[in-house]
Amino acid sequence: MTLREKVGQVNQRMYGWDAYRRTVRGFELTDALYAETERFAGLGALYGLQRADAWSGVAHGEGPGARDGAALADLVQRHVVERSRLGIPALFVEEVPHGHMALDGTVLPVNLAVGATWDPDLYEEAAAHAAAELRARGGHVALVSALDIARDPRWGRTEECFGEDPYLAARLTEALVRGMQGSGDRFAADKAPVVLKHFAGQGATVGGRNSAEAELGLRELHEIHLPAARAGVRAGAAAVMAAYNEVDGMPCSGNRALLTGLLRERWGFDGLVMADGLAVDRLARITGDKTSAGALALNSGVDLSLWDEGFTHLEEAVERGLVSEDALDTAVARVLRLKFRLGLFEQQGTTTEFPVGGRQMSTAVARAAVTLLRNDGRVLPIGTDVSRIAVLGPQSATTVHQLGDYTAPQRPGTGTSVLDGLRRLAPPGVDIRHVPGCALTGGDLSGIPEAVAAAADCDVAVLVLGGSSARTPDTDFAANGAARTAVSEMTCGEGVDLAGLRLGSAQYALLDAVVATGTPTVAVLVQGRPHVVPDTAGALLTAWYPGPWGGEAIAEVLLGLAEPAGRLPVSVPRSVAQLPVYYNHKDIEYGGYVDESAEPLHPFGHGLSYTSFAYGTPRLSGHTAESGPAVEIDVTNTGDRPGRTVVQVYLRRLITSVWPRTLELCAFEGVDLAPGEHRTLTLPLDADRLAGAGTVEIRVAESAGAALTAVPAVLDVGAASETVSQVLRA
Amino acid sequence: MTLREKVGQVNQRMYGWDAYRRTVRGFELTDALYAETERFAGLGALYGLQRADAWSGVAHGEGPGARDGAALADLVQRHVVERSRLGIPALFVEEVPHGHMALDGTVLPVNLAVGATWDPDLYEEAAAHAAAELRARGGHVALVSALDIARDPRWGRTEECFGEDPYLAARLTEALVRGMQGSGDRFAADKAPVVLKHFAGQGATVGGRNSAEAELGLRELHEIHLPAARAGVRAGAAAVMAAYNEVDGMPCSGNRALLTGLLRERWGFDGLVMADGLAVDRLARITGDKTSAGALALNSGVDLSLWDEGFTHLEEAVERGLVSEDALDTAVARVLRLKFRLGLFEQQGTTTEFPVGGRQMSTAVARAAVTLLRNDGRVLPIGTDVSRIAVLGPQSATTVHQLGDYTAPQRPGTGTSVLDGLRRLAPPGVDIRHVPGCALTGGDLSGIPEAVAAAADCDVAVLVLGGSSARTPDTDFAANGAARTAVSEMTCGEGVDLAGLRLGSAQYALLDAVVATGTPTVAVLVQGRPHVVPDTAGALLTAWYPGPWGGEAIAEVLLGLAEPAGRLPVSVPRSVAQLPVYYNHKDIEYGGYVDESAEPLHPFGHGLSYTSFAYGTPRLSGHTAESGPAVEIDVTNTGDRPGRTVVQVYLRRLITSVWPRTLELCAFEGVDLAPGEHRTLTLPLDADRLAGAGTVEIRVAESAGAALTAVPAVLDVGAASETVSQVLRA
Repeated sequence: MTLREKVGQVNQRMYGWDAYRRTVRGFELTDALYAETERFAGLGALYGLQRADAWSGVAHGEGPGARDGAALADLVQRHVVERSRLGIPALFVEEVPHGHMALDGTVLPVNLAVGATWDPDLYEEAAAHAAAELRARGGHVALVSALDIARDPRWGRTEECFGEDPYLAARLTEALVRGMQGSGDRFAADKAPVVLKHFAGQGATVGGRNSAEAELGLRELHEIHLPAARAGVRAGAAAVMAAYNEVDGMPCSGNRALLTGLLRERWGFDGLVMADGLAVDRLARITGDKTSAGALALNSGVDLSLWDEGFTHLEEAVERGLVSEDALDTAVARVLRLKFRLGLFEQQGTTTEFPVGGRQMSTAVARAAVTLLRNDGRVLPIGTDVSRIAVLGPQSATTVHQLGDYTAPQRPGTGTSVLDGLRRLAPPGVDIRHVPGCALTGGDLSGIPEAVAAAADCDVAVLVLGGSSARTPDTDFAANGAARTAVSEMTCGEGVDLAGLRLGSAQYALLDAVVATGTPTVAVLVQGRPHVVPDTAGALLTAWYPGPWGGEAIAEVLLGLAEPAGRLPVSVPRSVAQLPVYYNHKDIEYGGYVDESAEPLHPFGHGLSYTSFAYGTPRLSGHTAESGPAVEIDVTNTGDRPGRTVVQVYLRRLITSVWPRTLELCAFEGVDLAPGEHRTLTLPLDADRLAGAGTVEIRVAESAGAALTAVPAVLDVGAASETVSQVLRA
Repeated sequence: MTLREKVGQVNQRMYGWDAYRRTVRGFELTDALYAETERFAGLGALYGLQRADAWSGVAHGEGPGARDGAALADLVQRHVVERSRLGIPALFVEEVPHGHMALDGTVLPVNLAVGATWDPDLYEEAAAHAAAELRARGGHVALVSALDIARDPRWGRTEECFGEDPYLAARLTEALVRGMQGSGDRFAADKAPVVLKHFAGQGATVGGRNSAEAELGLRELHEIHLPAARAGVRAGAAAVMAAYNEVDGMPCSGNRALLTGLLRERWGFDGLVMADGLAVDRLARITGDKTSAGALALNSGVDLSLWDEGFTHLEEAVERGLVSEDALDTAVARVLRLKFRLGLFEQQGTTTEFPVGGRQMSTAVARAAVTLLRNDGRVLPIGTDVSRIAVLGPQSATTVHQLGDYTAPQRPGTGTSVLDGLRRLAPPGVDIRHVPGCALTGGDLSGIPEAVAAAADCDVAVLVLGGSSARTPDTDFAANGAARTAVSEMTCGEGVDLAGLRLGSAQYALLDAVVATGTPTVAVLVQGRPHVVPDTAGALLTAWYPGPWGGEAIAEVLLGLAEPAGRLPVSVPRSVAQLPVYYNHKDIEYGGYVDESAEPLHPFGHGLSYTSFAYGTPRLSGHTAESGPAVEIDVTNTGDRPGRTVVQVYLRRLITSVWPRTLELCAFEGVDLAPGEHRTLTLPLDADRLAGAGTVEIRVAESAGAALTAVPAVLDVGAASETVSQVLRA
């Protein structure tokens, strides 16, 4: 290959939606694509060919859908192969953060809702579905957020995290990789290589500010922010994306210790490292120009760039001696290898059908994520004695605001709001009245009296509050597609960090006014982060952003047609003033603030059922060299309804060489039990976490809060090996 | 020495106030002291013999004062020497955080106010005075907070920090060491060895929670939290105190890499390391018992314990092989060496007189610290046309709340409130009316109408608001003397962390009501941290905790008898929701929050004068091998009053191997100029900070905020050496 052909393979400069236009005769390629393939004598990768959203400006009638996406991909690919002297096809890289971000792509609940399911098997199925959709319409590679750990809910991308816990995130990241990629070196026709986003520490940026610095130490990085990546790599992830942020001074895209020393040499990762969008060019702040920025990134371990100018100058960088051609060859080989693994050299066209069942899949995840935080027993489940339900609140009759960020426009009529769901599922004859009451943002209180009147006149009020990550055409976007200034009702998503964690002020007034009527009220939160909401209603649910059919899942739980099954993947703060509130802080006695508790309003792992469960005392079992230690626990459904409990196993380190955390999740399992049913579960404990931990306590409980007082089993797993300390000294 | 005698030398188990009782015939020693000297066959060190405060329970009439402190010290010392087979005297260790915390000890403004002076020479004088007071009454060793960097104002000990900046803290720490210790190996009779508190990273604990974990990386630790310690060690500090907190998993008192590897081996420190109170015993959380906790601390580099049980079991630890007798000998030698340096083996009694001039010294520092944050020109300075002044607010007529934490009871009549100061200093005939309006805490609004009436009826309103660190006998204390639960009006100080950064709610109502009268209003804040106070008054001053005579200093500035000279040592946040707000964050473009700016309300370094200054364009000069680089700047007083400007020199790194901060303070100098006066200043730049920095910009401005747009001079100081990176790899 010529130097120029090689440089072409590691670039992904173009926005995919600039590559085509729709005409009355179908799709046509653009001069922009011709110029790009000419420039590089081919094309390494094309980003977002099928992306549709407010930023790309692609809407229904313009972009490719489920039926014609594959044809567009074929058209582009034929051109690329033709322009390439060696006939090298391009990688089509697409955003699939919670379903493919394309017209007709099934939107799944956001990652935070996936975290709330505590159900890796279910998520594996959902991920497999998303990959099948992607491949059926000609996409190849899926960009998926998985590695960011939610440590500061002010961050607008909290919705893209599986939660605050490294073990929960690791289990779900494994499920993602298994579901999307399948197994084996070659990808099946309905499987897609995953780019795990973002590596590393992006959930710890100061102030929850998007892509700001992380002041983390190496031990904190290893213990909290790297386990999901480690698990994803072990599961065979094809690629990871280097994050925007720096960690303790080292920008991830220019950090050879991270991208090469740790990821490749220590972990044995042999896949591809992609930079985040324009992250390479940002390195020019410290290198002085974009050419040397590209050289720094390549030398650090970045193989494939995204939108940057820096990587387009790699020819010059080689000629100036900033990078060696060997280093470039290595990156090119990784790009080509992924194309081989996808079989693109043999078969460039699509061979699978667009899968059915997306709606059912999305709804199943949403249903599993609905989390009951509080229930005084007077409201939920809504009983057969209820004849009038007031459905109130700015989130009660909308689907667009329950989708989350990174979503394509939905076809009219797609989705189910809470109002839709209740209307469809409530018993015949129940009178359902609807008043929004107020908007998501702002302080307009004029609609509240009508809502209060409806509440006062009904047996139950369902008050649906929350935030929104819905972009609109008038959103001002940064060069990388993050929102720059929030408009209309946006309070969350990339670039939309929220200092105060507050809903719009009118929503609080509405909550107060509705509760004050005395009508039994359930507050339902549809949101991309934990907001600060006083716990004044008789019952409180959060569904996070549950996706298009979330309203149906919520209605099922409200009516008792489904049992509440979700558990909190993050601690819910009382206020922004007490941040941080994650449960797995260091085991230090601090008494809280003089004006506020240091404890969260609702702890990590919390979630109620309509029934109740009793846990026995944990017993240790099965500690063989092969299986590792396990814990046995007796669980009984002690109520009169069926239900699901998520058995959570926490580790508490006793004698140790470094200061321990109060608790660390090290195993979990969801179990469905009929009324009175009893089961003995055996949960293997996380071997990584236990390695060399010495003497530890194992506590089993229904939340991190309950684990603080649970009766422990004591386990000795051998002397501490100080793995991280060894890394630090190395 | 026997093993028991050695162990005795490294213990400081007893509270000094338990060693004596006052009788009608004078001081008598207690059985507790007899038991302690018997137990250790002598006594290594005695903590707080002269401490007086609510925790020790020592008040006037009970404890030693300026006149009889020396006699008490002599009485105790004679007993110690008598009980010691080798005649080894004890070290008398005392709290001198801002003046000696003893009856009759002169209270100086807190460190945060010292930081606001930006005047190391003045602080050196004040420190020398405090040391002379300490030695004149028989104390030896001064415990002084200096090393903690204020990164989160929620922390109750923010008042003990010199501010958020490592260079400002380093310059003041040097001044402290020079002032208290003087020079040379032997301490003069009026000089005291300093224990610099706390080493290291305590200002970075999560959530501003006292002694919680710091998740810092090594580079952040080195760049922000260690420079003050490095400067103090270079200046010859006799001792440092290991901090309570851990840094990235390693508790400071059990961190050999920190206390031995860095401090002694790398920095060449040959002094004493003392543990913080009960910090050694806290290590039992990870070692399993207090004996091994003591062994871990000694092996890590702690020489002298404070109150712990762990160090009392070192005999057993030696016998069990947990520590070597050699390691113990090394620690004992450091304790004995400090006694030699103090001349205690030759002269145990006091040879100096209690110095005069404490009040003047304290007032001078307070005057230099008063900082004018806002001035619309209608209020300040209070003109001769003003005939009626309303003095309002809960801080207007009190001295106890302007002292700060770690202060002894004051004799009745000591100190000057703002009301006192204005009454004394206002021109004859000015009518001064006083109404408190509300209390420091709580929401009682009943006093506001009277305050409003007074404001409405006057030409100017002076509204003195703030917080308090005043302990009272009903305060509930932790075992180490930190407040456990705040009572009465305490909102700040050790153990009193404030999540919301809010004054009592009635104070906001009072501010709003007084401003609404339309009477020109100046708000004066007396506080131990930056609180969130809306900038609605015509003028705003902060004096931090200015000490007993702070009201006089404030009145002088209000009346224009002194020029406002202070500059902010910390950024003032708009709200707790935007934390952190320090100016020297990494140079990353983040656009702020959707609901709030990310910028502070008032930037670091900000402070107005009654006159105005013009700065020329900076020029580089005098870059010789000996002197290092310097910057020349022309400064002109362009107004019609005399005034002081603090010339601040900021570094901005251009090409660098790690991600740089936006700005770094690297030199400053306060200069007094008459109206129209012009001076050319030459400021040497911080050599440590510039070493190997490559190409940098030098910006000179009156605040960090102004420096963002100041015209830079560009300086090339040679290629980057990656000092910290070398440390990290070592």
